[in-house]
Amino acid sequence: MPLMPDLTLLPWHEVRDPAEVDAALCWRPPEGWLASLPNLRLVHSLGAGVDHILADKDYPAAVPLVRLVDPYMTQAMTEYVTFQVLRLHLGTPAYDRQQRAGRWEPHVPPRAAHRRVGILGLGELGAAAAAALVALGFDVAGWSRTAKALPGVACFAGGEALGEFLARTEILVCLLPLTAATDGILSAEAFARMPRGAGIINVGRGRHLVEADLLSALEAGQLSEAVLDVFPTEPLPAGHPFWTHDRIVVTPHVAALTNPETASLIVAENLRRLAAGGSWPDRVDLASGY
Amino acid sequence: MPLMPDLTLLPWHEVRDPAEVDAALCWRPPEGWLASLPNLRLVHSLGAGVDHILADKDYPAAVPLVRLVDPYMTQAMTEYVTFQVLRLHLGTPAYDRQQRAGRWEPHVPPRAAHRRVGILGLGELGAAAAAALVALGFDVAGWSRTAKALPGVACFAGGEALGEFLARTEILVCLLPLTAATDGILSAEAFARMPRGAGIINVGRGRHLVEADLLSALEAGQLSEAVLDVFPTEPLPAGHPFWTHDRIVVTPHVAALTNPETASLIVAENLRRLAAGGSWPDRVDLASGY
Repeated sequence: MPLMPDLTLLPWHEVRDPAEVDAALCWRPPEGWLASLPNLRLVHSLGAGVDHILADKDYPAAVPLVRLVDPYMTQAMTEYVTFQVLRLHLGTPAYDRQQRAGRWEPHVPPRAAHRRVGILGLGELGAAAAAALVALGFDVAGWSRTAKALPGVACFAGGEALGEFLARTEILVCLLPLTAATDGILSAEAFARMPRGAGIINVGRGRHLVEADLLSALEAGQLSEAVLDVFPTEPLPAGHPFWTHDRIVVTPHVAALTNPETASLIVAENLRRLAAGGSWPDRVDLASGY
Repeated sequence: MPLMPDLTLLPWHEVRDPAEVDAALCWRPPEGWLASLPNLRLVHSLGAGVDHILADKDYPAAVPLVRLVDPYMTQAMTEYVTFQVLRLHLGTPAYDRQQRAGRWEPHVPPRAAHRRVGILGLGELGAAAAAALVALGFDVAGWSRTAKALPGVACFAGGEALGEFLARTEILVCLLPLTAATDGILSAEAFARMPRGAGIINVGRGRHLVEADLLSALEAGQLSEAVLDVFPTEPLPAGHPFWTHDRIVVTPHVAALTNPETASLIVAENLRRLAAGGSWPDRVDLASGY
């Protein structure tokens, strides 16, 4: 049985009368299409981020924009981040390389309590990942634009604290939204502030990372390893140097895939809120971009 | 400053008078050496297991045998097991293979709540690993020789329950002691009881696993992946098929290395217990072999 029997749901290219559209569910709408809908009252992202929607220069600023906050995706991201942090913490990329070379060579990592992990971005996803890492015993810090307080997490806030946060971070996880302020934040300047041999995990957006700076930092040994799940162009193009780099792990944007079974319940609830007058806990602040 | 200033500590080959030795700290003592010490009152393993000590047919059965139970090693094992379970759960070996082939191909794993993990062995190490996996949301069961009760873990006990435990286990972790009863427990018979495509992680002893049965089960698709940290001969010999098998991850016995800084405190405490009349919480029951 449909969740909302009275709803008319159309693929965008089957819309005959733009005036009939009340709400748009989208990931990357065609440029200018949202602005062409005169009675639009809600735009709902089908993912946790909205940068792909706000990339439309003609986005109709008066229309509420809501992002998808789904506990299922939060759990998925927590599993992925926990795994990749443990991967770098335990030195697993080195063991994988050793196996390919047939070499038996134990290393002794510190225990989690002596491993300093830093989370860039302490929203829903960052806060949940931080909690799981604290539970495993890691020494966890987080950085966010506005001040937060999370149990067991050393919280840093604002641009001036970023340097101090990076200086204590051996494994960096980027879970920021992509905005004008965070575009290119994973840069040579950031890497230079981190301890030599640090690792990074990017599960934010491809554009958070300056790709050439990563390659230089790995070459110079300033960074030891990188795990990347997101890229400016996806799929990652054939022949891109990341595919074959032995210090870079590539995964195909799978950290937190939208799950139709759970997401549809949340979208339905947000559509009901539209009918009820309009108020959404996960409404995006267009000024900050998330 | 030494922990025990009055202690005389000698390497075994520097012992001049066997009658002077009160206690032996060992990993794999020379066959018959322990039996040659007439006044021996304690044998202390330098690891969590004692199979390497009891492999000595002349082990003096009247002498108490104590194993090393160190919270540091328990934490190390928990980190390793959590990592490897997440590795199989998230399908990471497939992503690693895809990266080497330059393929972008997302898979959707179930969430942890729908992933059935089974721990063989619910001693110190197994119980701690189970707790961490429960905290991450996995559906965790455990099997042990004698009945146990652990929060959030479906506990199975005794030989008759082993089949039922295996039948529900998609990711199997072996943390058993090596005894006559567990030698070769990871066999074709066990694999056949597990769901098709299951994965195994062996952090017990190399001899828990029947190597030829693993290769056959991987070949047939009954098992999908194996992670092995322990082997009958270590280092794993050059040319062994495990080194180059693309469904087998080899790590060089690093899941829980003995840590001298913390282990020495525990050994010192157990030596003091000897002076105090002898009673050890981690004394081995020679009848069960652990």
